[in-house]
Amino acid sequence: MNIGFIGLGLIGGSFALAARKHLNNIRLYGEDQKRAHLVQALELELIDETLNSQNYAAMDVILLAIPVDASVTRVISLLDQMNDNALLIDVGSTKSMICSTLELHPKRNQFLATHPIAGTEFSGPSAAFENLYTGKAQILCETHKTRPDLLEWAVQWFNKMEMQLQEMDPKEHDKHIAYVSHISHISSFMLGKTVMEKEKDERTIFNMAGSGFESTVRLAKSSPAMWTPIFKQNQDNILEVLEEYIANLQEFKSLMEQNDYEAINKKMEQTNAIKTILAGINETNNN
Amino acid sequence: MNIGFIGLGLIGGSFALAARKHLNNIRLYGEDQKRAHLVQALELELIDETLNSQNYAAMDVILLAIPVDASVTRVISLLDQMNDNALLIDVGSTKSMICSTLELHPKRNQFLATHPIAGTEFSGPSAAFENLYTGKAQILCETHKTRPDLLEWAVQWFNKMEMQLQEMDPKEHDKHIAYVSHISHISSFMLGKTVMEKEKDERTIFNMAGSGFESTVRLAKSSPAMWTPIFKQNQDNILEVLEEYIANLQEFKSLMEQNDYEAINKKMEQTNAIKTILAGINETNNN
Repeated sequence: MNIGFIGLGLIGGSFALAARKHLNNIRLYGEDQKRAHLVQALELELIDETLNSQNYAAMDVILLAIPVDASVTRVISLLDQMNDNALLIDVGSTKSMICSTLELHPKRNQFLATHPIAGTEFSGPSAAFENLYTGKAQILCETHKTRPDLLEWAVQWFNKMEMQLQEMDPKEHDKHIAYVSHISHISSFMLGKTVMEKEKDERTIFNMAGSGFESTVRLAKSSPAMWTPIFKQNQDNILEVLEEYIANLQEFKSLMEQNDYEAINKKMEQTNAIKTILAGINETNNN
Repeated sequence: MNIGFIGLGLIGGSFALAARKHLNNIRLYGEDQKRAHLVQALELELIDETLNSQNYAAMDVILLAIPVDASVTRVISLLDQMNDNALLIDVGSTKSMICSTLELHPKRNQFLATHPIAGTEFSGPSAAFENLYTGKAQILCETHKTRPDLLEWAVQWFNKMEMQLQEMDPKEHDKHIAYVSHISHISSFMLGKTVMEKEKDERTIFNMAGSGFESTVRLAKSSPAMWTPIFKQNQDNILEVLEEYIANLQEFKSLMEQNDYEAINKKMEQTNAIKTILAGINETNNN
């Protein structure tokens, strides 16, 4: 069978490697907006051949792994061009807009909306690795709208990859993912920005910053080209949680100004309960 | 020689293990406000014997590794009780207040103020390990005020531990450390708090949170008993950087509200320069 990958970065590239590992008798095709990424993906053997509009109809599966704004722009004509037994899988970090874009498409039942909860702060084909998704959550949206045989094929592949499948409504997905992922990225980007503005002497950061600083600003290395469209598409949910985050920081500041360190201590003690939650994440990931 | 450790948690305990590894002919004494920690430190052989006010005068060196408010409270009478050739080393995360507290003490030249930039989010004697400080920065303050022979002894020990020594004015230290450490902790605590408030269903956090969430909230596991006094003592510097952090988040929010995603993208691209800085930290740590 022929599998096409649109977008050959960390996410698409890692799916290509996982396809090669877990599926038999496959030929992998790929395209990327960046010519250099396409060349690199061929060199790294993420894919066997170039994908383009001339061979879309020859694909049995196409996996769409590009920024979420580009996905929404391209998805209608892409599905139009695919053959009547092919499956289109989207793996973007927002789900409401792409699901509503395709809602009335005559081939809606050949589409599957997913969100693999995996990634690193690195990007491009060279960042891809075949076990990126092992043990990670894979959210599936509106599976009842996907043709059962096509859904079954995708589920079997994800199971072989040892992903932890769960179903979620697209709107619910976007709300919860704003809390547990999108806000972390904004927090980290703005923390990095603040420290770089305050601390003009980079040498001092090198010398004085410990691993705590490193882990809180790690996400500020992430790709703006990927994240800007996510923030745009999930604007309402993100603004809601961002407002609450700012309010919490302002309250903390105001307690410091009032010298109410007892209240500060209490707030931190309550937040220590995050230990249990993080332990739960690790347990889930290791299952 | 006799070395005493006041505070047998992660920080003090790891110095005890490093003393055992790198120094000869030593006997290690320790005390901890928590009886259970003292018992555990004896069981884990972090120390050989209990330290108390009856044997302070018999110590050649005492290392003070307790919350910074307790250090300031205890340091004058402690130095009073030490013998005339003993060295008192403080390893707390703020340096201005302890240095000014001891400024006029008749035994000021038997005191050395340091800040080892190392730690984990865990605490207590069982969290201690002998290589915690290997390759890590060790800030020394006002070394000209410490008796040269005592300073020399400490420097040799820290060098054996492969710490990277650097000298810094106490006020400068407190300003810079607010930027590169203290603000990261507040950001992380408040992010953890926000997410726990918004996301009532812990199971959803388990299932949807990836490693990004984990790294940004990791510091929210830190000990409030240690951090509250740090925030209190470094109030002015922290308030300054916290204000700027909140302003940056507010600007980000306002750009989102205005749909100015071009400006957001640009801000994130500029912040990507943090890559170079983080690479520098790793290089420094690995040297």
